Amino acid sequence: MGFTEKNDIGATQQVLDGIRVLELGHFVAAPFCTRLLADLGADVIKIEPLQGDPVRQWGAQIEGRSLWWSVHGRNKRSIALDLKTEAGRDVVLKLLPFCDVVVENFRPGQLERMGLGPDVLRAVKPDIIIAHISGYGQSGPGRDRAAFGVIGEAVGGIRHLTNHPPGQYDLPPVRVGVSIGDSIAGLYAAFGIVSALWRKERTGTPGSAKTIDVALTESVLSMMEAMLPEYGALGIVKQPTGGGIATAAPSNAYPTADGEWILIAANSDPLFAKLVQVMNQDILQTDPRFQGNAARVANAATLDEIIGNWTKTKDAKQLAGILADADIPSSKVYTAADVAEDPQYRARQMVRDVDDPALGKVLHPGVVPCFPESPAEVRWTGPDIGAHSAEILKEFLDLPESRIADLKAQGVVR
Amino acid sequence: MGFTEKNDIGATQQVLDGIRVLELGHFVAAPFCTRLLADLGADVIKIEPLQGDPVRQWGAQIEGRSLWWSVHGRNKRSIALDLKTEAGRDVVLKLLPFCDVVVENFRPGQLERMGLGPDVLRAVKPDIIIAHISGYGQSGPGRDRAAFGVIGEAVGGIRHLTNHPPGQYDLPPVRVGVSIGDSIAGLYAAFGIVSALWRKERTGTPGSAKTIDVALTESVLSMMEAMLPEYGALGIVKQPTGGGIATAAPSNAYPTADGEWILIAANSDPLFAKLVQVMNQDILQTDPRFQGNAARVANAATLDEIIGNWTKTKDAKQLAGILADADIPSSKVYTAADVAEDPQYRARQMVRDVDDPALGKVLHPGVVPCFPESPAEVRWTGPDIGAHSAEILKEFLDLPESRIADLKAQGVVR
Repeated sequence: MGFTEKNDIGATQQVLDGIRVLELGHFVAAPFCTRLLADLGADVIKIEPLQGDPVRQWGAQIEGRSLWWSVHGRNKRSIALDLKTEAGRDVVLKLLPFCDVVVENFRPGQLERMGLGPDVLRAVKPDIIIAHISGYGQSGPGRDRAAFGVIGEAVGGIRHLTNHPPGQYDLPPVRVGVSIGDSIAGLYAAFGIVSALWRKERTGTPGSAKTIDVALTESVLSMMEAMLPEYGALGIVKQPTGGGIATAAPSNAYPTADGEWILIAANSDPLFAKLVQVMNQDILQTDPRFQGNAARVANAATLDEIIGNWTKTKDAKQLAGILADADIPSSKVYTAADVAEDPQYRARQMVRDVDDPALGKVLHPGVVPCFPESPAEVRWTGPDIGAHSAEILKEFLDLPESRIADLKAQGVVR
Repeated sequence: MGFTEKNDIGATQQVLDGIRVLELGHFVAAPFCTRLLADLGADVIKIEPLQGDPVRQWGAQIEGRSLWWSVHGRNKRSIALDLKTEAGRDVVLKLLPFCDVVVENFRPGQLERMGLGPDVLRAVKPDIIIAHISGYGQSGPGRDRAAFGVIGEAVGGIRHLTNHPPGQYDLPPVRVGVSIGDSIAGLYAAFGIVSALWRKERTGTPGSAKTIDVALTESVLSMMEAMLPEYGALGIVKQPTGGGIATAAPSNAYPTADGEWILIAANSDPLFAKLVQVMNQDILQTDPRFQGNAARVANAATLDEIIGNWTKTKDAKQLAGILADADIPSSKVYTAADVAEDPQYRARQMVRDVDDPALGKVLHPGVVPCFPESPAEVRWTGPDIGAHSAEILKEFLDLPESRIADLKAQGVVR
């Protein structure tokens, strides 16, 4: 049932120990999916092109090495292969019997064109679970459309909703500052993969759960709450609400004297009463414009201005103290620096210093989800291109060193 | 091993058929988690207070019934219990032996105060898997802080990054228009739960994977890409970039003549060449400010203005046609109306009309992840409070109707 000797011997306490995943991925979505699986202990073998995953070139570098990669590639093994060669594809097919899952995020149809379509893979390993991640999915009239992450987000509905209210400003909707659509799709794929593995373990076969087809657009859409049912039944086209919430006030980010933003969520009558008290503006509590949530929502812009004029007179740190003492839900809007110094993250090892052999100490986010009785480790950081090529060829294909050297000389393996 | 007769008989092809989940959740995160599990076929029993989950009051209603709930509660069974009564808690404990998983999102410690802490639950069912979802996690100095979803997002780093660039505008960072932190945390919990179930199935016991501790803050942080490693190694505090991307241009949302936004991602040399051609402004291609990606990024604001002046002269539909013909990645920024009409979503049943007995036809998003060989169904829509109370009490506790009537009369069950 796909449980290989290698992992039986390992006998660690990692949750997904015993699962081996072959990644034919690049950029964000599929590699994020396999990071999640690897973080929980799966043995992830990443097939890279000889020049490496293009994501290695993204973001800040130190001597040509990507800081992002330290996290994005962690806990995985890298084998670099030229899949345009027969010998390169042959290596993939020979690795398959040792794997439980393949994850890929090429454009739909590309895997087939490379000679590695599902039929070819299943001829070698009939019960392999295959997870596809793409912009629009593997079927339908739109499957071939070009789909960058930002487009998946726009089609999923998140971009329209991430903006200041219409009419209030004439600014374009804002991109969530990371490729959130890719990451959500990767997380959905990981959920689907483990679900399929559960079914296979329970019934002896993945059966009709052997293919997982995740689209960026659909992954984003699935999180849009009441947007679709309210449109369908009532014709309501959900609109963005800036920093606030459509149905509760006050809840927003407010400017501070030291140029930061503080988030205050005093959107209940008791919390609002506490807020006007610490603001020393008790008069607001009897002001009819702010009596009850409905009135506060109707006059949210005015209320936000009044609160902002108060927060502007104090530093973020001072405000955080005042609001915490009054037990009003609030927080500085965290930057990278705030995250790095936060004692709660540190106490739970959700911000941790990790030794990267190429980069020195690197700050990593911890492993989510947390299994407190089975603490997860960053076993190693994002490896160099092909760092495990020789090891993998020896372990699974039992190739002698001379043959591995030949493949390297021929440019099939790096 | 937690596989009950009931589900053995069911014999449907749903991926998670055979898993039973007890939800002690409310609002967004835990119910979203169980929606995902129920969508894949798990039998989810939602314990509700007699007055129902407060989320039933959120958003637009028809005759007092929530449209959001039609989706949020779908495929689950509802039993309404007063957990402040001994008899109410007793029902929970008697259901436990039939369940594999408990999901809860009370404030940390609240479950213990209700007399339903993990020790109590495990005294009845030793190998129950318990998933906690909270703002800051179940441990650490900050675990008791009040944590609304917006605060989890602010502490996770996503709020700071979702804004126009500093200095360019004096506007607060924007809230992603849905409770994205809650939903991401719920999805992480679902991933963790199925991982633990896999381990239990493989080894006969969940072992050290029996507790899952998901924090909103940490779930968001895990998606922040290079934010943390770049800060740690280089002191870079990642900043928001409005509608654009820090490292590639042009990529933004541009205004159209009919008051919509169109997303254009022409951020490579060949795509940019195509764009200036359809804009009939070939001169831009030799303009030194826009030669190569680095120059375009440096002059992105100017370039965005030029492109925006062109898009403003045309309707969204016309622009979409021109850009698609030129094979330039682009899309109208979808609103609810665009999503509802999109043929790709319809072809894949990712937008579907569902009959809700209380509301009539309701537009639902489809089931993600998609298992194409095992099509998922919306088996039923969000049920009324306690719609399955009697059914559940009979099925698992074997209570006669008279006893059920007593419990209802006593206000223990609704």
